[in-house]
Amino acid sequence: MSETKILASYVVESRLDDIPSDVHHEARRALLNYVGCALGGSRHPAVDIAIRTFAPYSGPPTAFVLGRAERLDPLHAALINGISSHVNDYDDTTPNNYSHPSSPVASALFAYACVNPVTGREFLEAFILGFEAESRVANAVYPAHYDAGWHITGTTGVFGAAAAIGKLLGLATHEMIWAIGLAATQAAGLREMFGSMGKAFHPGRAAQNGYEAALLAKAGFTAGEHSIEGPRGFAHVLTAARDLTKLTTGLGTEFDLRVNTYKPFPCGIVNHPTIDGAIGLHREHGLTASVVRAVRLSVAPLVLDLCNQQNITRGLQGKFSVYHGAAVGLVRGKAGLREYTDEAVNDPDIKRVRERTTAVGDPSLSEDQARLEVDLADGTMVTRFVAESLGNLRRPLSDRQLEDKFRDQASAILPPTLVDELIDRCWRIDQLSDLGQLIRVAAATVAESNR
Amino acid sequence: MSETKILASYVVESRLDDIPSDVHHEARRALLNYVGCALGGSRHPAVDIAIRTFAPYSGPPTAFVLGRAERLDPLHAALINGISSHVNDYDDTTPNNYSHPSSPVASALFAYACVNPVTGREFLEAFILGFEAESRVANAVYPAHYDAGWHITGTTGVFGAAAAIGKLLGLATHEMIWAIGLAATQAAGLREMFGSMGKAFHPGRAAQNGYEAALLAKAGFTAGEHSIEGPRGFAHVLTAARDLTKLTTGLGTEFDLRVNTYKPFPCGIVNHPTIDGAIGLHREHGLTASVVRAVRLSVAPLVLDLCNQQNITRGLQGKFSVYHGAAVGLVRGKAGLREYTDEAVNDPDIKRVRERTTAVGDPSLSEDQARLEVDLADGTMVTRFVAESLGNLRRPLSDRQLEDKFRDQASAILPPTLVDELIDRCWRIDQLSDLGQLIRVAAATVAESNR
Repeated sequence: MSETKILASYVVESRLDDIPSDVHHEARRALLNYVGCALGGSRHPAVDIAIRTFAPYSGPPTAFVLGRAERLDPLHAALINGISSHVNDYDDTTPNNYSHPSSPVASALFAYACVNPVTGREFLEAFILGFEAESRVANAVYPAHYDAGWHITGTTGVFGAAAAIGKLLGLATHEMIWAIGLAATQAAGLREMFGSMGKAFHPGRAAQNGYEAALLAKAGFTAGEHSIEGPRGFAHVLTAARDLTKLTTGLGTEFDLRVNTYKPFPCGIVNHPTIDGAIGLHREHGLTASVVRAVRLSVAPLVLDLCNQQNITRGLQGKFSVYHGAAVGLVRGKAGLREYTDEAVNDPDIKRVRERTTAVGDPSLSEDQARLEVDLADGTMVTRFVAESLGNLRRPLSDRQLEDKFRDQASAILPPTLVDELIDRCWRIDQLSDLGQLIRVAAATVAESNR
Repeated sequence: MSETKILASYVVESRLDDIPSDVHHEARRALLNYVGCALGGSRHPAVDIAIRTFAPYSGPPTAFVLGRAERLDPLHAALINGISSHVNDYDDTTPNNYSHPSSPVASALFAYACVNPVTGREFLEAFILGFEAESRVANAVYPAHYDAGWHITGTTGVFGAAAAIGKLLGLATHEMIWAIGLAATQAAGLREMFGSMGKAFHPGRAAQNGYEAALLAKAGFTAGEHSIEGPRGFAHVLTAARDLTKLTTGLGTEFDLRVNTYKPFPCGIVNHPTIDGAIGLHREHGLTASVVRAVRLSVAPLVLDLCNQQNITRGLQGKFSVYHGAAVGLVRGKAGLREYTDEAVNDPDIKRVRERTTAVGDPSLSEDQARLEVDLADGTMVTRFVAESLGNLRRPLSDRQLEDKFRDQASAILPPTLVDELIDRCWRIDQLSDLGQLIRVAAATVAESNR
């Protein structure tokens, strides 16, 4: 049987009860993180522009857009959800293939669930299967595919969205094969877009295109039946090297959700150990800007290749400045979205500490490690070594830390009581008789808080 | 200056008056052929399914769909126009890169012109510039890109649609660079879809996505600025070999519209010399099925690789049967859409002649050549050698032959007087004060004829 057919059959036939309960919990964590990121990104200018552009072309506005008061048709809502959930570079990452897997799948599902009755269990089932389909396609072509310049989140996300929506539509296997084919033939997204709004467009378009692929397949629109493994298919055309066994080995027993990771800080991941250490010093010693005289960082050499900006004025630059990361950690004891605004970058306290920070590359350090030395006003020095960065697979964010991350993002959009209610419904998603019970909490609240 | 910027500047700054008048005429020919193909394909099941699938998600139905009574928002109309104009594999081909260049560009433009005032001259200008932008992108990556398995009509069509709509939107150069970037990052379409509806989906999606790229760019949605030539851009990621000079050399003086070709017959192009010869014999000798005793074909060996089906029952198979092509040419003296229906394939006269036909591969013949020998009931033999196939660059379809092709396709959809009126308006397109004058002829008539 071809790989495409094996994958299609798996998605069609698999049931939530067949999936181990630890994977259910990882899916809930991924969804909590996803919803928080979608709310956190929902007021970004890229989202404003996309809504303004497409609203005149929207079908009947039956679907909520996460974090926004506007309503759109569900296909456009899927697009916007995908943009907002990725635009802060704060969504999840699987170290198996460095895609950001939840955004394309969940963005389509939340839009779909606005206009169709979907139980929490059905939603969780579709999310897990979409996530796994997408991540397995990515595993089969990583790293050559990514190295060539493809933004793997876009190119493989469309498979995940097609599989997830196809699951909810109840596609038969031959229809799921067409849905996967129509996804494959829309796989797109170039890394040349990094640094522009085009990057966040990728998971949005993947969500929308995957959703549409499933709808077309359900209606009988045919596609090639070997779209992944065929000689003119995805795994041959879009990568110089591939391992198709990764598509099918361990299907139903091994789950990439188990190796999904969550960023604790909305910035370049190589800054994370430095920030982690700085927050630790802040907490241990009650540091403030006025007591910090000098900061010396030792970091993996790659950090200085990517994040060596010190003289900065904009929030976006802060995401790629290890000095800024150290400063916000030491001064504020946190590094959430508010630490990467223009205001934070120009905060005199932050600026002073940033300018008193030096960094050297140390080849003996891994990219998960950092060493910090801080000279204090009283002449003492405090130090910290981070051996494993918070958020990596060996030090994953706890459920509680994920909630804190959610609150940090959602509290700018929703009142605290509704933030708590939304967190609660994400954790209990498989008990909801209709996803609307979760979506409406966010949406009603947005309207409320917008008044 | 980067290639992306050179191309963007050219599209932004070029004016119809700067473009030689022979190119204007080739553009009118391409548009006449395009509209005929869109009408001819408009009742295909792929079109029915796509309209049925997307109508519930359409925005305000302000745009006509060519050849159909339904109205959709212009973005969906662009998609459907693209499917119908390519679904019979009857649209134009440029031998420079074997893309079908008019469908993505014109499909977007006709949809746009339904909802915005566009003069005939503006329309022609945007069409020519979109066509050239798209074909130049294709030239820069052909043949390695096509050989790898990309359906070049989809992957480069999105550039053409973005450039053409961007021209009508009056994008500034930096906005056109973003539109090209948002096109590049949506470039998609796998040859693995050939033989399925997915193939015709490609120019449709390219039209829609290019249109949307231009709208987003106009609204300020940013993209990478080196989307073609950048190290993670289109020309590096989607092909193993490239010649970027083909993007920019001769811009404004050399036009791919001058080497555009039009299929005389809606079937695999390698059958064309055989059909051409058969029609010639029919006309010269007044042949009928009853007088044909045996037919011997000598063809390029590739013909038998691709089109060696003789025992067939479906119209679609007829497109890939050189025997069927010979039979319809000899018996009916034509090979239009009606010669590739299930009815035609099962017509007893056609079937009998098809079964009396043999073919041999002759390596001395080019793919533009064929030799036919026909034994007649009276014991005589008639023969014909085709040295250059009708429709190739050395024997292009005349304007009159393009009109005949148009009539063959349009007459199933529109009454004859309106077919004539539509032909006239295509030829006089640059004299129209509003494209609606052309579009409404087709649309009003469709509604009329559907009653």
